[in-house]
Amino acid sequence: MNANTIPQHTQLQEQLQDDLAELDSIEKRLFAFLYASTSIYFNGTTVDPVKAAAGRGEALTVFDEEQRKLLCSPDTGELLERLRQADKCGELDETRSAQVRILSRDRAQQADIPFDVASDFTRLRAEAGDVWHKAKISGDWASFEPLLDKIVKSMKHIASYKDASKSPYDVWLNEFEPGCDRALYDNFFEAVKKTVVPLVKSIVAHKYQPSRACVEGAFDPGLQWELGRELIKLEGVDTDALVLAKSEHPFTDSLTTQHVFVTSHVYEHDVLSNIFSILHEGGHALYEQGVDSHYNYTCLKGGTSMGMHETQSRFFENIVGHSKAFAPVLLDLLTKYFPERMSGVKLDAFYAAENRVTPSLIRMDADELTYPLHILIRYEMEQELFAGDITARDVPRVWAQKYKDYLGIDVPNHSVGALQDMHWSDGCIGYFPTYALGSAYGNQLAAKMIEEGMDFDGVIASGDLEPIREWLHSRIWRYGRSKDPLVLFEQAVGAKFDPRFYTEYLEKKFSDIYQL
Amino acid sequence: MNANTIPQHTQLQEQLQDDLAELDSIEKRLFAFLYASTSIYFNGTTVDPVKAAAGRGEALTVFDEEQRKLLCSPDTGELLERLRQADKCGELDETRSAQVRILSRDRAQQADIPFDVASDFTRLRAEAGDVWHKAKISGDWASFEPLLDKIVKSMKHIASYKDASKSPYDVWLNEFEPGCDRALYDNFFEAVKKTVVPLVKSIVAHKYQPSRACVEGAFDPGLQWELGRELIKLEGVDTDALVLAKSEHPFTDSLTTQHVFVTSHVYEHDVLSNIFSILHEGGHALYEQGVDSHYNYTCLKGGTSMGMHETQSRFFENIVGHSKAFAPVLLDLLTKYFPERMSGVKLDAFYAAENRVTPSLIRMDADELTYPLHILIRYEMEQELFAGDITARDVPRVWAQKYKDYLGIDVPNHSVGALQDMHWSDGCIGYFPTYALGSAYGNQLAAKMIEEGMDFDGVIASGDLEPIREWLHSRIWRYGRSKDPLVLFEQAVGAKFDPRFYTEYLEKKFSDIYQL
Repeated sequence: MNANTIPQHTQLQEQLQDDLAELDSIEKRLFAFLYASTSIYFNGTTVDPVKAAAGRGEALTVFDEEQRKLLCSPDTGELLERLRQADKCGELDETRSAQVRILSRDRAQQADIPFDVASDFTRLRAEAGDVWHKAKISGDWASFEPLLDKIVKSMKHIASYKDASKSPYDVWLNEFEPGCDRALYDNFFEAVKKTVVPLVKSIVAHKYQPSRACVEGAFDPGLQWELGRELIKLEGVDTDALVLAKSEHPFTDSLTTQHVFVTSHVYEHDVLSNIFSILHEGGHALYEQGVDSHYNYTCLKGGTSMGMHETQSRFFENIVGHSKAFAPVLLDLLTKYFPERMSGVKLDAFYAAENRVTPSLIRMDADELTYPLHILIRYEMEQELFAGDITARDVPRVWAQKYKDYLGIDVPNHSVGALQDMHWSDGCIGYFPTYALGSAYGNQLAAKMIEEGMDFDGVIASGDLEPIREWLHSRIWRYGRSKDPLVLFEQAVGAKFDPRFYTEYLEKKFSDIYQL
Repeated sequence: MNANTIPQHTQLQEQLQDDLAELDSIEKRLFAFLYASTSIYFNGTTVDPVKAAAGRGEALTVFDEEQRKLLCSPDTGELLERLRQADKCGELDETRSAQVRILSRDRAQQADIPFDVASDFTRLRAEAGDVWHKAKISGDWASFEPLLDKIVKSMKHIASYKDASKSPYDVWLNEFEPGCDRALYDNFFEAVKKTVVPLVKSIVAHKYQPSRACVEGAFDPGLQWELGRELIKLEGVDTDALVLAKSEHPFTDSLTTQHVFVTSHVYEHDVLSNIFSILHEGGHALYEQGVDSHYNYTCLKGGTSMGMHETQSRFFENIVGHSKAFAPVLLDLLTKYFPERMSGVKLDAFYAAENRVTPSLIRMDADELTYPLHILIRYEMEQELFAGDITARDVPRVWAQKYKDYLGIDVPNHSVGALQDMHWSDGCIGYFPTYALGSAYGNQLAAKMIEEGMDFDGVIASGDLEPIREWLHSRIWRYGRSKDPLVLFEQAVGAKFDPRFYTEYLEKKFSDIYQL
């Protein structure tokens, strides 16, 4: 057939098939670059020798450039534009449509910013990271101060390229958690503030504190690690698709649904630390493994957002892991590995010990109840920084005031104060709120499971979490990035997000434990 | 200044600077692709979960394509051609000159072969690898037979693209060991055959066999691993630039001089296995770490050839590790970790035990003396296959005959016969000879050290190998790939390679041990 005689429809169909093949080719290369970066980072935090840092940095820089070059090229832009047009004409199936939408969004996040602006920001983050790292050790806020002001300024500038119609902070909230803005977070944090601040005050005023004696003292690190291995299996993570390793800070990442990294850290004198890290990271791992495997090698692989990811991890860490129903399961496991220490420990004492509330300085060590207050403080300050109501110079003072007001504690130095987290130095202002949102989504999901007839506590107490995993898999995990978090959430529970599920859960749980 | 008024010389200089910058950019990307492939392979053999294979394959395919696309592009070809011209005019320094020469050679190894021919060969190797793997397990030569004939045919065809003026087997010998051909290997293997075959026969006929009782039985695997860590440090490997991990088959690889992988394997009932694997792989690691660090991120990084690499590993495994002078060092170390087992073991008994000669079927388990006969057999058969004197069908018969003739043993099945090695299935016919050459180079290097005044045995006996490392570093390691193996070797010893250093060493050493 001569090209001139081919019907136009057939030509368009051929063009579409070529475009989809090209899309697959681009996705496969992006997958490989991300595979490399992720593996390099994982090895860097787990096994690399001390002298390997320079070479690792050179390699990571290349992969960052290669992925940007490929994703942001005009050719890729035109390809995605043609595919968006085809989608509008209804020519793409649901998966292809989502793939084009998500890859276009990923591209816009990079391509909308001029190259030199993005490069300057990358350099600034690297410099700020170095300065922060040293400042944290010495507690020297003054050295970090100018860098934080520069970070805020840069982030506001970059936000104007992303969406000049929105306030810069809203732009970044949306960047870190698609669909979220201050309206949503204000509503959420108001509820948290109204419930949790007085609840913590009552607990502190009440004076009663459960003893932690049953979990204090030294526990053999090797046995702790073995216990962690058994626990992550019990949680339901597929260990044939898992690498479990040690690193200073626990984290989870994945290359495909069949290849997930989890790291944790054992402390000889804090036996609960690894247990709840494992349950937390195991929740992330379940999500990564639970994504539809057809999404492997495409942008649809992985969790849909940080908040939804944190929902899964905190669901297993707190709603399951710290529950009264799960306490016997944990105590049995501990007794199996540490019979001399744990035999004879009373269930109630164990449950109270693992749920003890102690207002404290460090976000990452915070208990379930006080955790959201650490985020609330950061959320309020981030807005003030973006609004120009405060500058970096004011941060330590405001920080100290808020820790006093909300948690009732004094901040003795900046290392355990405003310098404790790396996020701001890394240009992630607007990221913290996703942590708290993650906790809150979970209770509404649990309520829906119960509403649909699940014997929620019974499932947890049995130690076989399959019904919970199956529910989360069918409503959340399998969709990967193909649905945005709020859409996914609302489909899952058949309602809008309502923070009351979370605040009522906290109120009930901790009133019970503290007999308020 | 207007472009038209710039003197021609300045224009050329500017072009040269641009070209060198472009060369660096290409090298950095090739480095990153190799970094990724190497890390992915390392993780695959050490920590990856069982389900990770498919994703790993997808990623490796991308990096293989990306490096080929970059290295073989016409632009890179033209760049290298301009730089070769500049080199002819004396405009490149020694390092740049070597870099252009080596990268051009790397490029030619891929670019000289038409893309479809190369792809077909890659597919054939993958298929042959799969078939070989199954055939080895079941001992089924017939299933592998047609694949081996195809591999030989393909390799001959590809050789015609590489250098039609040479015999195909010589082309491949030169590919795996630059500068080497049948003339060199024939001379070498003739000496081996003349010396080692009768020596082994005398030993077997002699009937005396030293006892291995002192190293037999179970040794705690955890302690063996710790011993290995101490040994590789004693050998002189920089452990701040080393990842030491476990894998089924020991190997060494590197990303930079600051980031070297070594893997080994502990067998509870073979305490010497890990010790000599560590010394062997440690020799490779010393070479990788000893390359001039300015060569990092370029094609000049790493060892100059497989043969020269094997020289370093076998130097530390055999010439140092299996020597009489080193026996007390090893025995002390073993006694430190296994005092109950090793206290009271006589030095002579230990030395004889670790050097016992036993003609056996498996190349990888062979002792120092019989090892080269395994290679000799393969070298002879590879020539016959390439010459068409035999086909794959004849291999088992010829294999059995040669093992009978040279080693005096019968081959009970193909799994421990012609199916034992993966090399032929992987399209590496012509590769085996480098293993034997590596052993032989080492004795001439050691002789030169002694000739120059080194108290060779004294250094070894002291357990501080610094003078030996320093010698090898200054003559071999630091040059990386900037000098070809024969050039490097002849500069190091001030003479041509002479196999007599090796055969005389073997004759003296084993005549002593077996009191012939």
